[in-house]
Amino acid sequence: PTPLASQALVEMAEGEDRAQLLAALPAEKIAEFLRALPDDDATDLIGELEPDDQRKTLATLPDDDAGDIKRLLRYDEETAGGLMTTELVEVEASLTADEAIRQVRILGRDVEDFYTVFVIDQERRLLGTMRLDDLVVADPGASIKALVEEPSVTVSPDEDQEQVGKLLGRYNLAAIPVVTDEGVLLGRITFDDVIKVIESEQTEDILMLAGVTDEDELKHTWVQSVRTRLPWLMLNLATAAIAASVILVFKDLIEKELTLAFLAPIIAAMGGSSGTQSLAVTIRRITLQGSGSARGFVAKEILVGLVNGAVLGVGIALLAFLIDGNVMLGLVVLLAMWGNQIVAGFAGAFIPTRLDRAGIDPSIASSVFVHTLTDLLGFFLLLWLASHLLL
Amino acid sequence: PTPLASQALVEMAEGEDRAQLLAALPAEKIAEFLRALPDDDATDLIGELEPDDQRKTLATLPDDDAGDIKRLLRYDEETAGGLMTTELVEVEASLTADEAIRQVRILGRDVEDFYTVFVIDQERRLLGTMRLDDLVVADPGASIKALVEEPSVTVSPDEDQEQVGKLLGRYNLAAIPVVTDEGVLLGRITFDDVIKVIESEQTEDILMLAGVTDEDELKHTWVQSVRTRLPWLMLNLATAAIAASVILVFKDLIEKELTLAFLAPIIAAMGGSSGTQSLAVTIRRITLQGSGSARGFVAKEILVGLVNGAVLGVGIALLAFLIDGNVMLGLVVLLAMWGNQIVAGFAGAFIPTRLDRAGIDPSIASSVFVHTLTDLLGFFLLLWLASHLLL
Repeated sequence: PTPLASQALVEMAEGEDRAQLLAALPAEKIAEFLRALPDDDATDLIGELEPDDQRKTLATLPDDDAGDIKRLLRYDEETAGGLMTTELVEVEASLTADEAIRQVRILGRDVEDFYTVFVIDQERRLLGTMRLDDLVVADPGASIKALVEEPSVTVSPDEDQEQVGKLLGRYNLAAIPVVTDEGVLLGRITFDDVIKVIESEQTEDILMLAGVTDEDELKHTWVQSVRTRLPWLMLNLATAAIAASVILVFKDLIEKELTLAFLAPIIAAMGGSSGTQSLAVTIRRITLQGSGSARGFVAKEILVGLVNGAVLGVGIALLAFLIDGNVMLGLVVLLAMWGNQIVAGFAGAFIPTRLDRAGIDPSIASSVFVHTLTDLLGFFLLLWLASHLLL
Repeated sequence: PTPLASQALVEMAEGEDRAQLLAALPAEKIAEFLRALPDDDATDLIGELEPDDQRKTLATLPDDDAGDIKRLLRYDEETAGGLMTTELVEVEASLTADEAIRQVRILGRDVEDFYTVFVIDQERRLLGTMRLDDLVVADPGASIKALVEEPSVTVSPDEDQEQVGKLLGRYNLAAIPVVTDEGVLLGRITFDDVIKVIESEQTEDILMLAGVTDEDELKHTWVQSVRTRLPWLMLNLATAAIAASVILVFKDLIEKELTLAFLAPIIAAMGGSSGTQSLAVTIRRITLQGSGSARGFVAKEILVGLVNGAVLGVGIALLAFLIDGNVMLGLVVLLAMWGNQIVAGFAGAFIPTRLDRAGIDPSIASSVFVHTLTDLLGFFLLLWLASHLLL
């Protein structure tokens, strides 16, 4: 039956397959599916069609459905406007609880999942919200005006979806109202939409930290994966080559003391590991709490680097001494490891914080910066110290 | 006032600070806070006290509250039983809609956020659920038995919280019923608890991929951070040293051809980068979709490695030729890069899938395996090929 088929289309992951399936259907069939869906889901589906097909499909829908969808299509997919549905249950503040419940009974027939009743004035400005459960248990004669709670949070339609997710999670809301600057109620965003947002934003964090710059990667073919991952790898190749070229600069030194060729990649790799730890913690912190008041966190990461670096430095110094029997080489490698660990802790916390404050997504760019820095510094510290202390 | 203070305690991040604050309060004051909270939140708070303080606090609570909390304390914090509240609105199937609403009005006064009404038989076995909005719009004379929907999903109290989060997200539910093996209703888990679970499980994924093995890291002092991160770094140091020791094995070769000391860390690092990309995509896929039917994904990652490896291999070969002017060295480095990229793609997809199927959290262990493999193979392929093709 149509409602089930429509639901199946909504549940299908976005991307190539669903767009192709839709494109293959006649416009009348698509319209039939769409009428069975809430307007936010219908808008998501139509948004995947080519502009020509969008027009054709909208033309086959009843005028009021088409109008809702056209309005919703204007909002960016990743904003509150792109998430919201305009289908909701609203009552005027002048009613009593009993009158309101009767109105909810009528309006509620066409609305899915309305756990929140929106209370408006005659200009459709939002006065507040009532939880449906509170309305049900209320004294029938009580006036809605006395029962309404000021909405703990509202969002504008241009609000970023990540921010909407944070608000809903923080305030434990079943639905967030979307209002204009003048306070007029436009729609609502429900918890199930937000769960999807939280999942996709976090997929983004994980993948971008690893250098996969497209959140849709999970649905990609191998050709698309190559296209999104290769640019990052080529950038990495360039930075790795620049860092390793320090080895060529100190060629003569390595010829004399070949153990350095064994130690250099270890110090660089350990800098990368610590930098990644610090980076992951910081990016997670920024996602959950924002990048404000970061000074304490940066200081903490430097302290962690100071201690971890001392321990790892002694470890690698012992190893170098065992292999080479040279105390001075042990000292050189201890200092190089230690310095690189401190910088790794600092950079892993400082760089993403700065990028976030500059309005750049820290997950994308931080990893390249931190790894280049710890590679370069790891090679350089070891070989520069060796050239001054060993010869 | 007490309810606000209680709510503030619930919103406080778990961990040292909250436990200390609680421990500083007299048992009577704690009990006062707890009475204002739903039993799942109260249980979380009590769970943070020392056993002695737990007993003292429970003794000051009314018997029925204390009994609920004691029962909930028996469940592991990270299971459905640890998440659920026993406070819910239940009606018997023999009622009419009108009678049910009247019962909901009474029961609902003490229950927060009851968007779902649970329908039970006389033995308290769960027959199904009704959305409160459906009950409100129903014909008053209709029997509940005719209106009830079979619950689309129930969980046992031992179910892992990650699984609960997945189910609620997939089925867009406001609440999941928790039932015994015999189908007796024990409690419910609401969407707001699950949003917290989804966030914390994903924090875990991100941090563990980066080698931070404690999901509570965001709240840690620097001493605790050193304690949880250093063991992973020491393991890393050991594996990095083992991988780099390949350089010592081929010492004579590097003495003759020092460009190899420049190329080896680049090939190892690029293997690590590609392996991390493949790993991040695979771990995210496992978290969202499980590790079943992975053969296609592993094949895709190998294909991606094949193509990326060819491009990166040509790039590094050109670089080596520019530095050294030796065509044979170019060929050696091309093959080493290519081979390592293919293995990186394979290992990044295969290792976490196997670990997950073996019941081991893939985020913890995969990264060490993949990096050790790509480091070791990167060094070995380059130097072994060089020793056969260059001399």
